[in-house]
Amino acid sequence: MLDAAATDFTPIRQLGEFALIDRLAQLLGRPTSSDLLTGIGDDAAVIRLTDDRALVWTTDLLTEGVHFDPSYVPLQHLGFKALAVNASDIYAMNARPRYALVALAVSERYSVEALELLYAGLHEACRAYGIEIVGGDTTSSKGGLVLSLTVMGEAHPDRIVRRGGGRPTDLLVVSGDLGAAYAGLQVLEREKAVWLQNPRIQPDLSDADYVVERQLRPRARRDVYEWLAAADLLPTAMIDISDGLASEIWHLCTASKTGALVYASRIPIDYQTQRTAEAFGLGGLGLALHGGEDYELLFTLPVTAFDRIQGLTELHVIGHLTEAERGIHLAQADGSIIPLEPLGHDHFRPSEATE
Amino acid sequence: MLDAAATDFTPIRQLGEFALIDRLAQLLGRPTSSDLLTGIGDDAAVIRLTDDRALVWTTDLLTEGVHFDPSYVPLQHLGFKALAVNASDIYAMNARPRYALVALAVSERYSVEALELLYAGLHEACRAYGIEIVGGDTTSSKGGLVLSLTVMGEAHPDRIVRRGGGRPTDLLVVSGDLGAAYAGLQVLEREKAVWLQNPRIQPDLSDADYVVERQLRPRARRDVYEWLAAADLLPTAMIDISDGLASEIWHLCTASKTGALVYASRIPIDYQTQRTAEAFGLGGLGLALHGGEDYELLFTLPVTAFDRIQGLTELHVIGHLTEAERGIHLAQADGSIIPLEPLGHDHFRPSEATE
Repeated sequence: MLDAAATDFTPIRQLGEFALIDRLAQLLGRPTSSDLLTGIGDDAAVIRLTDDRALVWTTDLLTEGVHFDPSYVPLQHLGFKALAVNASDIYAMNARPRYALVALAVSERYSVEALELLYAGLHEACRAYGIEIVGGDTTSSKGGLVLSLTVMGEAHPDRIVRRGGGRPTDLLVVSGDLGAAYAGLQVLEREKAVWLQNPRIQPDLSDADYVVERQLRPRARRDVYEWLAAADLLPTAMIDISDGLASEIWHLCTASKTGALVYASRIPIDYQTQRTAEAFGLGGLGLALHGGEDYELLFTLPVTAFDRIQGLTELHVIGHLTEAERGIHLAQADGSIIPLEPLGHDHFRPSEATE
Repeated sequence: MLDAAATDFTPIRQLGEFALIDRLAQLLGRPTSSDLLTGIGDDAAVIRLTDDRALVWTTDLLTEGVHFDPSYVPLQHLGFKALAVNASDIYAMNARPRYALVALAVSERYSVEALELLYAGLHEACRAYGIEIVGGDTTSSKGGLVLSLTVMGEAHPDRIVRRGGGRPTDLLVVSGDLGAAYAGLQVLEREKAVWLQNPRIQPDLSDADYVVERQLRPRARRDVYEWLAAADLLPTAMIDISDGLASEIWHLCTASKTGALVYASRIPIDYQTQRTAEAFGLGGLGLALHGGEDYELLFTLPVTAFDRIQGLTELHVIGHLTEAERGIHLAQADGSIIPLEPLGHDHFRPSEATE
């Protein structure tokens, strides 16, 4: 018989997620459809429907034990998060999410009522982002819960924003604040460890409500998408922050063929994130750069837009793009400039928050 | 901490897959978009794009140990099958598949080369069905291989065929032959059991090549879809046979609010399927009715179309629809008429092929 898993030699972790995707994409050959405006390699695929209408399309697979720990992730929040992170991919293309498919594989440990909680969370996210769930697949699994979401959005083809449109001197803008979701994860993991040692001790989440909520129930930035449309501002490039700011800047600059200079002092970090990081012997900046799961938007705007975003509390100019030869650098608080390396979360290599 | 899985009481197997889907769909409320032409409950969702263009959309989740056994399923065939069964859902709506997203979660047992085999199979299916893979997600899993495919197709809104359009007296037509995939599964399971007892004995698949291929590498019926279009024939209702003929007839009749009379002697069964069934002490008819995974098309046509399909070797008139009050019945070879029960494959209740 076969041992398919052992067919050959190269461990996936040796390549890493992004190189693996490149290698598999090459096997599929060059796309031939002229309607395919954006294929593998952005937050979502883009397909032209008519001259004034494009369809934006993304999928995500969440598996128990890797993407969520059922011992502290309430299923209602998991449902909300699963849809929100896909909506975030659609907003990152400057498009509006419309429809979703939900595919679910569950082991026997899950009851009907547990799935109803999951669906209640999905339904909340549907209302928050104006999405309708129009179909899916429900089946069984031998490995806990697996959740696959596919979301379809829409935009005018001229309003689609990709990763690769940034130009030197463009402002680098980020929404909200960063590092909170990873700080929340540290708190939840700590409380789980305490609880495993003594199940009678209930979790202590005081002083960590904000970071825990950012981990369990992240929001997609519908408000930023709508504000950009209302202000008639079109980012030159955009990506959502799922793997940590440093990694996303690296993706954006690579696709845009630019460098970047980022000012550490301008990176927005919530007070609770900073305090939580310190309690774990980490720095808030390290979490913001490498933590991941913030689902904020990172985008670039021409310098001429500077006055338009000054004073908006939810948008922060953290630096600007440079010529590619200049590389990607971080200006630290003390004025020194260091290379900014993408240490972000790679699903096939354990990530670590570093400073 | 939480024990989400144990939140409550009702085991999923108590409800079964179809009742579970109904219950979860109710939680989502009524769809409000007027562009949603078909939602949860058909082979695929249908969304109106323009007056002469509709988008057809389906997803499937395949998990190791439930949907495939890596000890005898070559990954190249798995890739082909995963895309083919989604293409089959699109053809079952009388639409043409166009684009796919592939989401993959893999455990460390899988090498890069193993995934390349999987992608080679996906690529073959892309060519066979005219599909382009435009994006996806690649991540890790603790439970083996999980594969989620989403396929988008297109059709003129007036050419879309649903499950619910059948009318009494309509002819019930099936493509190809039935029961072969389940017969192939029995052979593979038998050879695996032999091999587990003595790994030096290589599998004996002689005299079972056809049924094994039908199990490992089913085709979607692109040819039937194209023939219907060329013949300018529009089925009144259609579904693909993933769960066994009896179950699909039951779905089609329930949605169409009709009964049906099916003639056992007209159900197409390949000689090798019949012989394999007998070798396992089963009957070919039982496999055809309840086996599943054939991915043939079952559709209904007005009686006036009878002459058009007479003599086509790949299409078989197996009976006709009746008034709902007449129920769903099988006319056996000896002339007796018995109720036809849907014992088809339910992913949450172990299925059994019976006669």
